Amino acid sequence: MTASRPDTPLLDTVGTPEHLRKLAPEQLRQLADELRAEMIDAVGSTGGHLGSGLGVVELTVAIHYIFNTPDDRLIWDVGHQAYPHKILTGRRDRIRTLRQAGGLSGFTKRSESEYDPFGAAHSSTSISAGLGFAVANKLNDAPGKAIAVIGDGAMSAGMAYEAMNNAEQAGNRLVVILNDNDMSIAPPVGGLSAYLARMVSSSEYLGLRSLASKVANKIGRRVHHSLHKAEEYTRGMVTGGTLFEELGFYYVGPIDGHNLDHLIPVLENVRDSDQGPILVHVVTTKGKGYAPAEDSADKYHGVPKFDVVTGEKKKSAAGPPAYQNVFGETLAKLAETDDRICAITAAMPGGTGVDKFSQMHPDRAFDVGIAEQHGVTFAAGLAAQGMRPFAAIYSTFLQRAYDQVVHDVAIQNLPVRFAIDRAGLVGADGATHAGSFDVTYLASLPNFVVMAAADEAELVHMTYTAAQHDSGPIAFRYPRGNGVGVEMPEMPQLLEIGKGRVVRGDAKVGKVAILSLGARLEEAKKAADQLEAMGLATTVADMRFAKPIDEALIRELADSHEVLVTVEEAAIGGMGAHLLTMASDEGLTDPDSSTGGLKIRTMRLPDTFLDHDDPVKQYDSARLNAPHIVETVLEALRHNSAGVTEARA
Amino acid sequence: MTASRPDTPLLDTVGTPEHLRKLAPEQLRQLADELRAEMIDAVGSTGGHLGSGLGVVELTVAIHYIFNTPDDRLIWDVGHQAYPHKILTGRRDRIRTLRQAGGLSGFTKRSESEYDPFGAAHSSTSISAGLGFAVANKLNDAPGKAIAVIGDGAMSAGMAYEAMNNAEQAGNRLVVILNDNDMSIAPPVGGLSAYLARMVSSSEYLGLRSLASKVANKIGRRVHHSLHKAEEYTRGMVTGGTLFEELGFYYVGPIDGHNLDHLIPVLENVRDSDQGPILVHVVTTKGKGYAPAEDSADKYHGVPKFDVVTGEKKKSAAGPPAYQNVFGETLAKLAETDDRICAITAAMPGGTGVDKFSQMHPDRAFDVGIAEQHGVTFAAGLAAQGMRPFAAIYSTFLQRAYDQVVHDVAIQNLPVRFAIDRAGLVGADGATHAGSFDVTYLASLPNFVVMAAADEAELVHMTYTAAQHDSGPIAFRYPRGNGVGVEMPEMPQLLEIGKGRVVRGDAKVGKVAILSLGARLEEAKKAADQLEAMGLATTVADMRFAKPIDEALIRELADSHEVLVTVEEAAIGGMGAHLLTMASDEGLTDPDSSTGGLKIRTMRLPDTFLDHDDPVKQYDSARLNAPHIVETVLEALRHNSAGVTEARA
Repeated sequence: MTASRPDTPLLDTVGTPEHLRKLAPEQLRQLADELRAEMIDAVGSTGGHLGSGLGVVELTVAIHYIFNTPDDRLIWDVGHQAYPHKILTGRRDRIRTLRQAGGLSGFTKRSESEYDPFGAAHSSTSISAGLGFAVANKLNDAPGKAIAVIGDGAMSAGMAYEAMNNAEQAGNRLVVILNDNDMSIAPPVGGLSAYLARMVSSSEYLGLRSLASKVANKIGRRVHHSLHKAEEYTRGMVTGGTLFEELGFYYVGPIDGHNLDHLIPVLENVRDSDQGPILVHVVTTKGKGYAPAEDSADKYHGVPKFDVVTGEKKKSAAGPPAYQNVFGETLAKLAETDDRICAITAAMPGGTGVDKFSQMHPDRAFDVGIAEQHGVTFAAGLAAQGMRPFAAIYSTFLQRAYDQVVHDVAIQNLPVRFAIDRAGLVGADGATHAGSFDVTYLASLPNFVVMAAADEAELVHMTYTAAQHDSGPIAFRYPRGNGVGVEMPEMPQLLEIGKGRVVRGDAKVGKVAILSLGARLEEAKKAADQLEAMGLATTVADMRFAKPIDEALIRELADSHEVLVTVEEAAIGGMGAHLLTMASDEGLTDPDSSTGGLKIRTMRLPDTFLDHDDPVKQYDSARLNAPHIVETVLEALRHNSAGVTEARA
Repeated sequence: MTASRPDTPLLDTVGTPEHLRKLAPEQLRQLADELRAEMIDAVGSTGGHLGSGLGVVELTVAIHYIFNTPDDRLIWDVGHQAYPHKILTGRRDRIRTLRQAGGLSGFTKRSESEYDPFGAAHSSTSISAGLGFAVANKLNDAPGKAIAVIGDGAMSAGMAYEAMNNAEQAGNRLVVILNDNDMSIAPPVGGLSAYLARMVSSSEYLGLRSLASKVANKIGRRVHHSLHKAEEYTRGMVTGGTLFEELGFYYVGPIDGHNLDHLIPVLENVRDSDQGPILVHVVTTKGKGYAPAEDSADKYHGVPKFDVVTGEKKKSAAGPPAYQNVFGETLAKLAETDDRICAITAAMPGGTGVDKFSQMHPDRAFDVGIAEQHGVTFAAGLAAQGMRPFAAIYSTFLQRAYDQVVHDVAIQNLPVRFAIDRAGLVGADGATHAGSFDVTYLASLPNFVVMAAADEAELVHMTYTAAQHDSGPIAFRYPRGNGVGVEMPEMPQLLEIGKGRVVRGDAKVGKVAILSLGARLEEAKKAADQLEAMGLATTVADMRFAKPIDEALIRELADSHEVLVTVEEAAIGGMGAHLLTMASDEGLTDPDSSTGGLKIRTMRLPDTFLDHDDPVKQYDSARLNAPHIVETVLEALRHNSAGVTEARA
C-alpha cells in the first residue's frame, strides 16, 4: 500500500462509459495507463484478483468505447477480471471496498450495477447467458447486442462448447471475445489449449496483426470482408476451417489485446458487421503492466494486500496449516505406499492441495481443466478399473458434476473419493463460492458415505479412511482456510464408518447434547462451556458422518438427554434433517415413546444467499456461533424450568 | 409379436464373443443378419429401444470380433443401443425379459455382465469413463484398451467435449467410435451437427470410403500411415485440421457402418496402431434393416410392443392424457396471449411436450441439444432480458445443470420456470432415469419455489402459476405417464404461492392428517378411506408446495390432529424433511408445547436405487402405496389406544 494514490487526471473525468465515449481515440492510451495504476493501488490495499484485471485493461476501455453499454450487454466470464470495468462504470468511489464487508463484490453482480447484466463467479457461463440476451432481443426486435468476454481456460468447460454449438441463431447480436492469456489460475491443459497455442504461434498470427493495423487505418470500413464462413473454407475433413468456424462462428484474430490501435477499429467493425456470431480472439498478458505480477508464476491471480512499489505481499500471521495442504500432503504420503491412489483436480491444483500430491506423484495427478463433469466420470472409470481415485473439488464446483456423481458414481456404487474443499461459508468470496449444499445433495444419494472434518487432524483421518473405503463412494468436506491448531497425528486413524465420537461429557448422562458436524465443533464446545456455567450438563458429540448417521449414538443421547441440538455449516436437508427423519421414523419424540419428552433443534445455514463478509460476521449472520447455540438450547428449554428461564434472563 | 421365432442357425452357435472370434470373416454377414432378426423379434415382444440397436448390429459384431472383450473395455454411450451387444455377450436367453420386472435392464449395467464395464443411461459419459479405464491400464502397464461408442447427438453435450479435450494422454489405449446416424432421439441441432454433415457429404467421404476398401484388401497393414496428426495438417487458422484432430485425436473416416468388409479391416488396424487416441467416424442408419423403423420419423427410438411383420405398435388403452402433453399444450395456449413465454428443451421435444409448443410458436421454442447446462443458463439470460422462459427438463437430466440452477438462476433470483417431467419412479426405465432427488436439491436453494402436481388439472394450474411468477425461480414436477383422469379445468387457476389445500376432511378436526406432495395423492385418499373405515377421522391435504411449505396449514393440522404423515415420491431431504425442520424449529413436538403429543412420520423414496419394474410393484418396493400409508399411521398410533390397536389387528 502506498501512502499517496496515483495521479489520474484523465480517469478523474470519466465517471461512466458515456464520458468515456466522448474521448478522442488518442486519449485512450493515457486512460488505460491511469486505470491500470488505479487498479494496482486499489487491490494493493484490499487484496483480491489482480492479474486477470490487469490483462484486460485495454480491452475494458475498448469495449466500453465501442459498444453502447449498458444497453449492449457486456458479460465478463467468471467476473474476477472486472475490476477495471467496475472503476469505469460508476463504482470507482467504492473500489477500495472490494471484497470487504458491505463493499463491492469481487465478481460481477446484477444488484450492484446496471452495467453488470449477468453476475458470474463460476467460469464458462457467459456465452450461454449472452445468447439468452441476444435471442431475447431478436424476438423483441430490440437493437442491443451481447458481448461475452471469456478466457481460454474457461473454454475447456463443456458448457462453453455447448453454448458455442448453439450460438449461430444469434446472428450479429452476439460477440464472443476470447481473452487468450494462456493462463487461467493454473496453466491450461488439454487439446483446446494446444490448439490455441498453435494458432497464436502460426505465421497467420502475424498476418492478422498486419490486418488489424490495416483496418486501423480505415476506420469505418467493415471488417466482415475479411471474415470467413466455415462452409466457404472447409476443404474436406483434413483442411476444415478453424474449430470456431466449424461450430458456426466468424473468427477474427488473433489480435494484440494491449494495442488500442488494433482493438478499437477491429471492435468497431465487429460492432457494425451485419453477420455473426463473431468470435474475436484477443491475446493478452495476465498481470500486464505490473512487473511483480507478470514475473510471478500465477500472475498474481488472487493476492492478499501488497506493497505496490515492491510487490511484497502482506503475510498473514503464521498459524495452523491450511486444510487444503493437510489434505494434499496426507494424500501424497498415503500414495507412497499405495500405488492405486490418484488425485484429480479441475484446474485448481493449488487451491485443492493437489499440487502437493503431483510434486511427489506426477503420473498419478490429473488436472482435467475446468471440466468437473469429465473429471468425476474419469474418476469413476479409474475406480472401475481398480484404482483409488480422489476427486478434489470445491463444494460449489462439485455442483457442476452432480449428475456424474449420481449416475456414474452412486448408482454404480463405485469407490470414488470426493475431497470437498471450501465447504460452508467462504468469507470474501461470497455467495457464489459458498459450499452450502453438498451435504444435502450428497447425503440424499443411496450408497454414499458423507463425512465432515471437525479439524485438521480429523481431515488426516478422513483422507486415510476414504482411501481404505473400497465398497462405494465416500465424500469428506472441510472448510476454507486454516485449521484450528490441534496437534497433528503421527499416524492416521481408520474411522469406523457411521460412527461419531463424544468429545465432551457423557453420552449416557446430561441434559443438553450438541451434535456437531464439521468445523463448528469449536463453537459447540464454547457453547457447552457457557451452558455448563449455567448449570446445564452438556454433552458434545462430533458426528463425523452425515451419512450413514450414527443412529446408536443418537438413540443413546435421546434416552438420557432432554434436548438434542444439531449444528452444521450446511443448508437445510443436511445432517440435521437426516437426524430428524431418523428420529421421526423411530418415534423418538412421540409422547408415548421411552424417549418421550425429547426436544430436537437443528442449526444450519439460513435460507438466504449470504454476501461476502468477514468470516466471523458471516457466521453471526448465519447464526452459527457459540452464542446462537446457547440461545437455541435455552429457547428449547424455556418452557419447562424456572431455573433455566432465570439463567436465560 | 410373431408366433414363431426367426431362424438363427449361426447365432445359435455363438454364446459369447469368444465363439464369435472363431468365425471366419465371411460368416459375419450372416451372423449380423440373424442378430438383427433376433433383436427385432425380441423387442417386438417386450417393447424398448429399437432403432438405435438396429443401427449398430454390424458395429457390434465387428467390435467384438476385433477387440478382446471383456479385457478390452467396451463402453456403449447411453447404453440403449446395446441390445445386440447383450445378445452376443451371454444374455440371449434373457433378451425377451428386457425392461421387465427382474429381467435385463434396457441399458448397460455393471452388475449384469462383465461385458458391461461401465453402465450408462444418460448420454455422453463414455469417453470420460473410457479414458479412466485407459489411464488406469497405462499406470499399471496393463494391455487392455478402452473403446467408447458414442452417437453424434451425444457429442453435443459439453461433457463429451471435456473428455476429448483430455484424451491425448491415453495414447493408443483409447478408441472412440463416433456412431453418426444424424439422429439421436430428435433430429440433432447445432454447429457440430452441421459440421459432421459437411464432413459426410464432402467429396473426401468417398475418398475415404475407397480408402476403407483399399485397407480391406491389405489386412494386417497398419492404418496409421493414413492417420493424420493435427500439427502436421494445420495450415494456419483458416485451414486447420478437423475439429477432432485439433483436440488431439487421430481421425479415421467416415466409414460405412453397415459394411463389414470395411469395418473389420479398419478396426483391426486401429486396434494394432501404436498411435492414438483414435476417433473412428462411422456412419450408420438408425433403424437399419427394418423398414417400419427406417421409415418412421423417430426411427423407432423407443417403442411399445409391436407386430414384427406389419410394424404396428400395440396401443395402450386410451386413457387420461399424458402429463407431458398437458404441459406442452397448456404452455402453448398460454403463449398465445403472452409473447414473453419461451420453451427450452435439451434434445427431448417429444418427451417433454415442447413439440406441442413449438408447433404453435416455433420462434420461441429452443432445442439446445443434449446440453442441459447451456440450456439452463441460456434460459437465465432470456429471463434477465425480460422473457418468461420454461426449461422443460426431466428430473434426472436436470442434475446435469445443477450448478447452473444454483449459480445462474437461484443466486441471481431470476424467474426461470422449470417444468420437471419424470419426477419420481419411472417403471421400465429404472434407476438411472428415476426422478428421485429434485425436491431435495431444489428446495434447499434460497429463492426457489418448488411445486409438485397431484394430477393433470393441477399441472395446468401450476404451469399458469409459474408463468405469472416473475419474482424468482419456480419449479414444478410431475410424473411420467398419464394423468389420473380428473376433469380438466376450463381456465387455469393462479395458485397462491406456498399454500396447500385440504382435499378431504377438515384441517381443524381429525385424528390423522396425511400431507401429500404430488401424485401420491390418490393413494393418500385410498388410505384415508381405509383409516376412516377403522374409525380414524382422517384429513388429507395436497401440499402443492415443497417450498415455501405451508406453515400455517401445518400448524393448524398439528393443533388438531394426533398424527401427521407426509407422503411424497422423493428422496430424503424433500417436503417431509422441510416439515420436520419447521416443526422442530417451532417445537411442535415438544412435550410442553400446545401441540405436545403430536407424532410425525415422513414417507419418501427408500435409500436404495430401485431397478426397473412394473410401476405398481415399484411403489410397493418403495412402500408408497395406500397400504403402506395405513400401516405407517397405525404404527404411529399403536402406543396410545386400545381401540386403535384392535383396529390394526
